[in-house]
Amino acid sequence: MRTIEWHNGTVKTINQLKLPYKTEFLELKTCNEVAEAIKTMKIRGAPLLGAAAAYALALTAYHSKAKRREELIRELEEAAETIKNTRPTAVNLFWAIDRIMNKARAFHGSVTDLAFFVVDEAEKIAEEDANANRSIGKHGASLINDGDTVLTHCNAGALATVEYGTALGVIRAAAEQGKKVRVIATETRPKLQGARLTAYELKRDGIPVTLICDTMVGYVMYKRMIDKVIVGADRIVRDAVINKIGTYQIAVLAKEHGVPFYVATPKSTFDLTRKSAEVIIEERSPEEVTYIGAERIAPKGVTALNPAFDVTPLKYVSAVICEEGILYKGDLSTLKPKTAERK
Amino acid sequence: MRTIEWHNGTVKTINQLKLPYKTEFLELKTCNEVAEAIKTMKIRGAPLLGAAAAYALALTAYHSKAKRREELIRELEEAAETIKNTRPTAVNLFWAIDRIMNKARAFHGSVTDLAFFVVDEAEKIAEEDANANRSIGKHGASLINDGDTVLTHCNAGALATVEYGTALGVIRAAAEQGKKVRVIATETRPKLQGARLTAYELKRDGIPVTLICDTMVGYVMYKRMIDKVIVGADRIVRDAVINKIGTYQIAVLAKEHGVPFYVATPKSTFDLTRKSAEVIIEERSPEEVTYIGAERIAPKGVTALNPAFDVTPLKYVSAVICEEGILYKGDLSTLKPKTAERK
Repeated sequence: MRTIEWHNGTVKTINQLKLPYKTEFLELKTCNEVAEAIKTMKIRGAPLLGAAAAYALALTAYHSKAKRREELIRELEEAAETIKNTRPTAVNLFWAIDRIMNKARAFHGSVTDLAFFVVDEAEKIAEEDANANRSIGKHGASLINDGDTVLTHCNAGALATVEYGTALGVIRAAAEQGKKVRVIATETRPKLQGARLTAYELKRDGIPVTLICDTMVGYVMYKRMIDKVIVGADRIVRDAVINKIGTYQIAVLAKEHGVPFYVATPKSTFDLTRKSAEVIIEERSPEEVTYIGAERIAPKGVTALNPAFDVTPLKYVSAVICEEGILYKGDLSTLKPKTAERK
Repeated sequence: MRTIEWHNGTVKTINQLKLPYKTEFLELKTCNEVAEAIKTMKIRGAPLLGAAAAYALALTAYHSKAKRREELIRELEEAAETIKNTRPTAVNLFWAIDRIMNKARAFHGSVTDLAFFVVDEAEKIAEEDANANRSIGKHGASLINDGDTVLTHCNAGALATVEYGTALGVIRAAAEQGKKVRVIATETRPKLQGARLTAYELKRDGIPVTLICDTMVGYVMYKRMIDKVIVGADRIVRDAVINKIGTYQIAVLAKEHGVPFYVATPKSTFDLTRKSAEVIIEERSPEEVTYIGAERIAPKGVTALNPAFDVTPLKYVSAVICEEGILYKGDLSTLKPKTAERK
């Protein structure tokens, strides 16, 4: 099943805030509805944000009443701004918007042709992400041994992408090859994507998964229960991987325990002209920390930090798995991946 | 205010599961009531468990209808077994029970005299803990500089002890000396003692406290926001500090970032005849992980680990602060602490 789909001017996706309690589908018809769903994290996961951003432009183009090409371009530019102002850290959103806008501006044809071109391009971005995940899975599976226990953080699964998943795609591909893989999933406070989404996806697939609190990562590594760590990424810059808060400390612990730390992510997440210091780390509402769901867990008036992401310097990363192959230490600068097998 | 008090055959303490939402006092009249309160963590914190265990024997002695000394000893032995079977990891509970039972067995006098002797000894244990915490505070405060930001984990405060606290005692003592100290408190899943109890205590004292999720420790260290870490302990063995789950990974992160990692704890927590491999790490119910309060956060049927403690090898520990002074690397084997100042 796809996490996001286009149906004649409607974007259908799942409300990820309601999982695993309830499977509620959203039917989004405007760019503003997509923007709201991204801001509130009903839609989340870097690759999925890329597809959702693309579809937001597709909705704008499809429903536009513009009579002239320039008018539609102006509407698309407004929509692009709206989407770019939702969440600052995952680069896929900006990448998808820029890709469509650059092509739209260069497009020569009628306003109707341009509208259909934008919709087609959004469909292409979604399709490419699904394919990229399958390739990531195939390459990454070569790193997984039969009997491995893999720790993953947050959700880099089908729900974070258009289909199949990045980190969970690697685990799925290994399982499909007949390897026995067990997963230890961190619950991933504050938004609990590990407990809610990763546990849900793996359980549905019949891949054995054990949930731990974020406090227990050191313990399971100390106990030699973890063979590998695989996580996704929100942005890969020249010097670091930027991913869900908590990733960095898992990487430090992996290094301390000699556990390989892999990042599985499509090239749409690469932003290799920038360094980590240039990236805005989104700070979200302190209430995400002081409340869990509707329940307040701290005394009234206590302040909290809530950075949504952290920065893992490349020295902690054993390899980056992308759709073109595996980038080991040093390969990221040259972008010459090793392929797991000939295509 | 004392966390636990004796009033003519009743042990009065606060129900820590209800904080910070509600201040509910428990009035315990039997050893079994104390045992139930310990098992369910209405009473928690290693030094407080020592006092509670002592008071459980005091309740047994005070309400006993035994006519002969031997009869009371047998009742006390039964009570001792009941308390020893509540929670296996914090050593203070065993230490307090053994101290009273050894003295009771050696006691010569009437059954009534023995009963009062047991009550007195329990009162002494509680009083000594309160005094130890003040001394720990005084010694530890010498390690805190004006303007420091200190990270603490779980709750090693007044609520974990009879009064004042161990890790929070050090912070309180530094604040009482006029030093500006800020605290970053980890929420401490699964039971959220940091969010519920540490934030509550510090806010009440007017010491600035900021709450973070357990995923954010690496981030705040990477950002150089932490000058020191201070935590409590449930048991100190020859090779390690055993404390609340999550302590170990904080110690590894502290080492990686060059941040001093201090453990503040009374000598009743020392168990230096044992090594960490001999200590039982309590495994609690998986529901503490898959639920938060009444709210389920993971799909039905997902398994979870729930070790309540972890093991921090001494190589990660900068110093142990006890009531006699500060034990730096190597001092723990000789037990020759450096005193912060002459008494």
